[in-house]
Amino acid sequence: MALRVGVVGGGQLARMMVPAAVELGLDIRVLAEGPDMSAAIAATAEGDYHDADTVLSFAREVDVVTFDHEHVPQDVLRALEDAGVAVRPGPQALAVAQDKIEMRRRLSELGVPVPDWAAVHDAAELGRFLAGHGGRAVVKTPRGGYDGKGVRVVTDAADVEDWFSAVAEAAGEQALLVEELVPFTRELAQSVARRPSGEVVAWPLVETVQRDGVCAEVVAPAPDSAGRLADAAEDLAVRIAEELGVTGVLAVELFQTPDERILVNELAMRPHNTGHWTIDGATTSQFEQHLRAVLDLPLGATGTHRRAAVMINVLGGPADGDLAARYPAALADHPEAKFHFYGKAPRPGRKIGHVTVIGDDVDDVAYRARAAAAHFDD
Amino acid sequence: MALRVGVVGGGQLARMMVPAAVELGLDIRVLAEGPDMSAAIAATAEGDYHDADTVLSFAREVDVVTFDHEHVPQDVLRALEDAGVAVRPGPQALAVAQDKIEMRRRLSELGVPVPDWAAVHDAAELGRFLAGHGGRAVVKTPRGGYDGKGVRVVTDAADVEDWFSAVAEAAGEQALLVEELVPFTRELAQSVARRPSGEVVAWPLVETVQRDGVCAEVVAPAPDSAGRLADAAEDLAVRIAEELGVTGVLAVELFQTPDERILVNELAMRPHNTGHWTIDGATTSQFEQHLRAVLDLPLGATGTHRRAAVMINVLGGPADGDLAARYPAALADHPEAKFHFYGKAPRPGRKIGHVTVIGDDVDDVAYRARAAAAHFDD
Repeated sequence: MALRVGVVGGGQLARMMVPAAVELGLDIRVLAEGPDMSAAIAATAEGDYHDADTVLSFAREVDVVTFDHEHVPQDVLRALEDAGVAVRPGPQALAVAQDKIEMRRRLSELGVPVPDWAAVHDAAELGRFLAGHGGRAVVKTPRGGYDGKGVRVVTDAADVEDWFSAVAEAAGEQALLVEELVPFTRELAQSVARRPSGEVVAWPLVETVQRDGVCAEVVAPAPDSAGRLADAAEDLAVRIAEELGVTGVLAVELFQTPDERILVNELAMRPHNTGHWTIDGATTSQFEQHLRAVLDLPLGATGTHRRAAVMINVLGGPADGDLAARYPAALADHPEAKFHFYGKAPRPGRKIGHVTVIGDDVDDVAYRARAAAAHFDD
Repeated sequence: MALRVGVVGGGQLARMMVPAAVELGLDIRVLAEGPDMSAAIAATAEGDYHDADTVLSFAREVDVVTFDHEHVPQDVLRALEDAGVAVRPGPQALAVAQDKIEMRRRLSELGVPVPDWAAVHDAAELGRFLAGHGGRAVVKTPRGGYDGKGVRVVTDAADVEDWFSAVAEAAGEQALLVEELVPFTRELAQSVARRPSGEVVAWPLVETVQRDGVCAEVVAPAPDSAGRLADAAEDLAVRIAEELGVTGVLAVELFQTPDERILVNELAMRPHNTGHWTIDGATTSQFEQHLRAVLDLPLGATGTHRRAAVMINVLGGPADGDLAARYPAALADHPEAKFHFYGKAPRPGRKIGHVTVIGDDVDDVAYRARAAAAHFDD
């Protein structure tokens, strides 16, 4: 019988696990939030992942449970483990990804370089942090943020008064995370995969370009990163995966500073937007690797097919909603581009797909990838 | 709304269209012969493809109908066309792939080089062909053969007495196909894709190694084929696709002779085993290309990632049926190999999967591909 992987959540990350599962001969099943989700083709159950019984009954039909996102509550994760379900990554590791204050605390304990930070409970505490950091800082809600949501640059505690009110009413720690505004020269991301037996592999370090807090472009490998920078990033991500006991893919988002340090910005314990280029550009994609890792199968090679890969997100899409009408011109102009769409309706700012081009000249590859993706702009 | 492709037949070719459809954002639906077929993940209907009503009701929900195999009867295909369904490849083209005598007749009319052949209706006619060809020949049943089934090397008309009895009772032409035994130096295959608008693209010519009438290995590109041989094969396949009006992928199996001619052995109007290497080795796989072609979308680039790709079929598999038990050692020994399984139970001689390795040294690539696939031998 085929090995069975259950994925909680029916978004595009679950969707992109499907091709890898089909090729490897795995039986992939998805617990979707509802009908017509991105991963609908593999949805074998629908339900609320906050409900332990729903997730448990889904989990009983598979060999291992993994995730499309990091939002499954700890009590549900613990209930799965108590019932003997293999949960990967496990609750302890996920706890660090679920709460940004917890994440900063653990990374600081491990001596991992991070921006200056504090957990602030009220305007006075935030005011003191601002005063100590030139009057500007980044405030983040500890939970539930993504793609720039739950992140604000502030110069005054009044800028996040609404958030203080909201966290005061929430369960758990009643605090916001505040961080120094890092004067970075660029953003990088390092993905690794680790399996329960301990094997860890790393893909090349990549450069990421964010616009309005959302990943817009990824260049792999990161230009001018060979040698010490790439080694440092890989060592850092491997160490984090090992120390936190991550299983599956771990993506570490990094700032590179003017004095050539790297600081950890965010962690994601799942396949990540900054690794989508691996589908077309690497021997083993992050989605195949994640499946291998959570099944505790030996990991695949992470080398690249060509010298460069550039991935451009398709954000928003045509205002008339008619993606298919854009295919003929896009495909005709760019026979070398790999187009990926997530089965999501166009909507301003929404990630609905991505385009990857690979080749040996990074400037040419980037030019073509941007031009190909632009066919789907409004 | 996503473009919708309906595939008649739930075998491994339909299965391998699924990853390509998911990545491209297409809505793929399969009419499967029953439950637990290879392409079950995309099965939206089950039924008998010999029944026009079954196929018609499936076809009404999609934008175009294509096929996992060439066995859908002409009357069903015509009923689809009469109902306004886009059928690709169309009935006229498929008629040539469905009947080996018709195929030989059309290719001969087109002046395409083929082995000497005849349609023989009884032992006397076969005897005369044998007498004219050194006393040995290949006899094929015109319909339904695959992977060496329906093919016999004969020295006496009595060797196929049972087949003469069988065709005498069948509908249509009551004949067998007899062909000269071509003294080939090797077998080659040329795949092309053509879309209704007329665009045609070709992948590199490949060398194929058959064992017991079944494809065992494919080397891409075919060693020592650059230049005139590759050009001749491409020209031949393009011309066949155009003359027969094929839409989708066309695979042309070829014999290379000691006097350096190429003769057409078989045609397949669908993705074909000799093109599986394109999943991992080419910019556009034959499965993605087939979907693009039948939707009349512009075709993708057919260049290769590396200098060589070698594909080895997994035939039979472990006698104990436990494929999954072989994964750990296979994946550990060959992190660079791409393993593909079709969700089929192991059974002697059955094609249950394939392994592809790509790289720049063909001998090294072939060695590693064979070693990786051997992990799944009985």
